[in-house]
Amino acid sequence: MLFANIAVLGEDFLVRENMYVGTKGNRIAYVGETKPEGNFGERYDGAGKLLMPGLVNAHGHAPMTLLRGYAEGLPLQSWLNERVFPFEARLTEEDVYFGALLAYAEQLRFGVTASADMYFFGEAMARAVLESGVRANLCLSVTCFDGRAFTELPVYKETCELLSRHPNDPESRLQVDACLHAEYTSTPKVAAGVGRFAVENGLRVHVHLSETQREHEECRQRHGCTPAKYLEGTGLFDAPGIAAHCVYCEEEDRQILRRHGISAACNPISNLKLASGILDAPAMLAAGVNLCLGTDGAASNNNLNLFEDMKALALLPKALEGDAAVLSAKEALRAATRGGALALGREDCGAVRQGCKADLIVLDMDKPWATPAFGREAQLVYSAQGSDVVLTMVDGRVLYRDGDWLSIDVQQVKEQVEKRARHIASEVGK
Amino acid sequence: MLFANIAVLGEDFLVRENMYVGTKGNRIAYVGETKPEGNFGERYDGAGKLLMPGLVNAHGHAPMTLLRGYAEGLPLQSWLNERVFPFEARLTEEDVYFGALLAYAEQLRFGVTASADMYFFGEAMARAVLESGVRANLCLSVTCFDGRAFTELPVYKETCELLSRHPNDPESRLQVDACLHAEYTSTPKVAAGVGRFAVENGLRVHVHLSETQREHEECRQRHGCTPAKYLEGTGLFDAPGIAAHCVYCEEEDRQILRRHGISAACNPISNLKLASGILDAPAMLAAGVNLCLGTDGAASNNNLNLFEDMKALALLPKALEGDAAVLSAKEALRAATRGGALALGREDCGAVRQGCKADLIVLDMDKPWATPAFGREAQLVYSAQGSDVVLTMVDGRVLYRDGDWLSIDVQQVKEQVEKRARHIASEVGK
Repeated sequence: MLFANIAVLGEDFLVRENMYVGTKGNRIAYVGETKPEGNFGERYDGAGKLLMPGLVNAHGHAPMTLLRGYAEGLPLQSWLNERVFPFEARLTEEDVYFGALLAYAEQLRFGVTASADMYFFGEAMARAVLESGVRANLCLSVTCFDGRAFTELPVYKETCELLSRHPNDPESRLQVDACLHAEYTSTPKVAAGVGRFAVENGLRVHVHLSETQREHEECRQRHGCTPAKYLEGTGLFDAPGIAAHCVYCEEEDRQILRRHGISAACNPISNLKLASGILDAPAMLAAGVNLCLGTDGAASNNNLNLFEDMKALALLPKALEGDAAVLSAKEALRAATRGGALALGREDCGAVRQGCKADLIVLDMDKPWATPAFGREAQLVYSAQGSDVVLTMVDGRVLYRDGDWLSIDVQQVKEQVEKRARHIASEVGK
Repeated sequence: MLFANIAVLGEDFLVRENMYVGTKGNRIAYVGETKPEGNFGERYDGAGKLLMPGLVNAHGHAPMTLLRGYAEGLPLQSWLNERVFPFEARLTEEDVYFGALLAYAEQLRFGVTASADMYFFGEAMARAVLESGVRANLCLSVTCFDGRAFTELPVYKETCELLSRHPNDPESRLQVDACLHAEYTSTPKVAAGVGRFAVENGLRVHVHLSETQREHEECRQRHGCTPAKYLEGTGLFDAPGIAAHCVYCEEEDRQILRRHGISAACNPISNLKLASGILDAPAMLAAGVNLCLGTDGAASNNNLNLFEDMKALALLPKALEGDAAVLSAKEALRAATRGGALALGREDCGAVRQGCKADLIVLDMDKPWATPAFGREAQLVYSAQGSDVVLTMVDGRVLYRDGDWLSIDVQQVKEQVEKRARHIASEVGK
């Protein structure tokens, strides 16, 4: 496809007007100010449009769309224990498959081309990824409250099977990561086992870290140090990866993340909604940690429109620090795109650059809220809507365009999720 | 129009499925579970749709769309003094007219049916209100740094002229309010004069209050009390109205607002973006103050999508108080609709109730992010998009429907704003 005469958000996070971007196969084959030679297939008229890298949702639980809006307004512990956990205990593989498909449909609509999703029933999630055409790092949530080793847990076997069916390959849209749910839901033995497993198999890790003050403080009592320090000690961070939330990370924690190549996935809306707190994003950037963005599950957001999280990321530090100049539009755009791609270990994604994977989105800028066109970069963060996305391409293939999903039967998926979610809710006895 | 088989957000802020709502002239003539007798004109098929009161933007500066995105990322004082004020000094009546039209087009798209807008060139704003079909309370910003009385200021004469051309009438979409820009931009003499003028003419007042910590503390130094206490003393609050921002209001201030029927307009996104702070909305509600919502001007938001402000209003107190159960979806919905209508003195707006003005919006709920349909009320706050609005009716007249604006030539307005804003920016020397 040849995007012609289109505004482009470049690698420097500045927008240039009237550019040409050509894709061939699953790659970006040309970026320039002049029309390229050669055949790129369909010519896309870019007048009034803007092309940018697809957004990357670096921390999600895709199938949790099934729990969207379920049991709202309860305090956190009763919400989790009386509603969420009993609901999740009843989920089947097919439920998870349809829940993930609904998440990917929503993400495509809002310009998210890749995500890192932690859940269970890995093969059902893998089917959703492969069939829908999205890019995703999947991992199976590892928890353990007894004396077993990681290799003794059923989830170890499941992760190995998922890996053997879908071997990690730089050309594959699907990647399997190692996972530890969190410090407070596991043992040192299991954390060490997951770290060793990741290093031996060349996998990345994905973990929840210091999401709540309680978790952070109880870890101090249990282990005499912060969750980041503790997990470093177990060897979990010997593999690079993603630490989600990081709300209560301290300066030493940030240095640990930076040293080990662990990206911090900020989930600003979920952290507000669950009353967890607000990540100090400027401190994370100042420490040199790769900052990325996540929606978390739809049950605590309640949508997967990462444009909303990008705006929240840019806004919150301003009020907290009393300085309207902190966390620039450029930094927010980087976290939502390139930062996320690097967090997923996808070096060749998240940038409009020749040779990169063609994970691209087009926004319609011919909107009242995009007028006047002072500073397109700030517009993308502060005034653009996820619904301004008119085309979403993953791996060179157009998956959403002008109201139509080209790889997902969205009507069927909505009906399935509605039916399945209501059935489970009636069983839980809401 | 007869909205048939449609979900409706009721006066109790609960959603009921399969309702009928009929409008005649500018009023809601029927609300019920069964099909009414009589002729209501067009039958609107409500399958998959939700009808609710139009949102009310209780604090805005509509023509500031001209400054959207202008000079982003600067500290507040240089942004104001070096960019915003010089830009505004160059605005003409026609600029203000087109800027206001662009704001009303955007607001209609996002389901805002009424707004309270403070600016200058009142007749130009009035033209935009009357031609576009929206409902608005307009007021002319009163500032004074010398010894003159309110009646000696040009803006006094302008306000009287605006009132004589557009007398306040409960049936009119346009209402003129009295205005004091703020404590720190006026004198006790002028504040008292505006209060007297409002009482004598039966007008409501609109004022900025305790937006920043600096403003709040400097008032203490100047007058020995908070801005609310000071303004009460001048008699400004002898008329009911709107106090915008209220970020630093204390308990005594909240009691003053409640006693005088002054509504607190929370502008959460603008307050974050300008690093002003975060209003304690639960305390405002607990004090019995009527809480409403505003976008503030597009220069500090940067859009007029009040759905975003409603979500921010509901989210921020949860993290600040560490309690996921504070500020319910119902309270957020009330602030965005009925609370705003009451703030504007429009008792017969902001509710789907027989006899009320037909200021109504329809949302398409057949969306991935509205699935499953657990708790429609929470969905409207946490997952709905302003862009889900498919129909906006003001005073019984459909002004936006399925992508088309029926009263505003949006293409022309965008072009005019683009041209005019660029011209002024080039003069300011950005």
